Amino acid sequence: MRVLGIDPSLHSTGFGIVEEAGGALRPVAYGIVKPTAGLPLHLKLAEIKAELETLIRTYGPAEAAVENPFYAQNMKTALLLGQVRGAVLVAVAAAGCALAEYSALEIKKAVTGYGQADKEQVLTMVRSLLGLDDASVPFDASDALAAAICHLNTRLFQLKVDGKEPP
Amino acid sequence: MRVLGIDPSLHSTGFGIVEEAGGALRPVAYGIVKPTAGLPLHLKLAEIKAELETLIRTYGPAEAAVENPFYAQNMKTALLLGQVRGAVLVAVAAAGCALAEYSALEIKKAVTGYGQADKEQVLTMVRSLLGLDDASVPFDASDALAAAICHLNTRLFQLKVDGKEPP
Repeated sequence: MRVLGIDPSLHSTGFGIVEEAGGALRPVAYGIVKPTAGLPLHLKLAEIKAELETLIRTYGPAEAAVENPFYAQNMKTALLLGQVRGAVLVAVAAAGCALAEYSALEIKKAVTGYGQADKEQVLTMVRSLLGLDDASVPFDASDALAAAICHLNTRLFQLKVDGKEPP
Repeated sequence: MRVLGIDPSLHSTGFGIVEEAGGALRPVAYGIVKPTAGLPLHLKLAEIKAELETLIRTYGPAEAAVENPFYAQNMKTALLLGQVRGAVLVAVAAAGCALAEYSALEIKKAVTGYGQADKEQVLTMVRSLLGLDDASVPFDASDALAAAICHLNTRLFQLKVDGKEPP
């Protein structure tokens, strides 16, 4: 079972695809999508959407997990983050992925056991959970991997409760 | 010269296509896009995007005008409005339309002469400017038509200044 985690941001949208097989988690691909500098907003959003669709086509995750923000620094940031999130959700829908949303607290708790963990702690735990040697994982990518791990945990737990095997 | 005005909103995104020919403005098409009730957010956004792309393909506007919000009632509304706007901008980009953005004040001022005009006043002036008999134009559609009129005015003025003919 493969899940794509996405951490939307205009300058650097993080992505992370995690696979579960036989109870173990494996990082399939991760990184960031950076739209071309200097483009107008709608073309940057279109680039983010196109890149995510390519990733979904390439790696075939069946489900996507995105943080559901309920807070931003200010109104301007909220409107901007919302627009990037809109482009991300359209990409997920266009690629036929199911969408799961989690709060930042749920995602942090799922990987570190602590809802107020900082980015460094999330990165450390993501690397440990996925056996990632790579010392240069960007925070945006580790946040995206954390969202994917959070969703995999939730789905695997649901399947166990239902007495079903993971797909 | 045809311009598509868009007023983004999750429940009812207004659209209005206005054509300028020989100095006169003509409403080509207008209405609202209402995503299917009960769908998850990403599928609603995908529906809005798809409908706008169909409209652009059908009526062939070369440019689109969208209000640039800098304010929302609260953080939750800002995030939601942002997401719809993201889906709208991706549709504009995908259809190859140029994008123009105006503040609510600029749009209201362009059609009523008064930046604080209410929706009723905007509707009245839009109907008058476009010679619209239709008494049942929804506010979302008249706001979208107003954005298109605002952009046409701006473009025609620019062309006049540059000593060029409208395309």
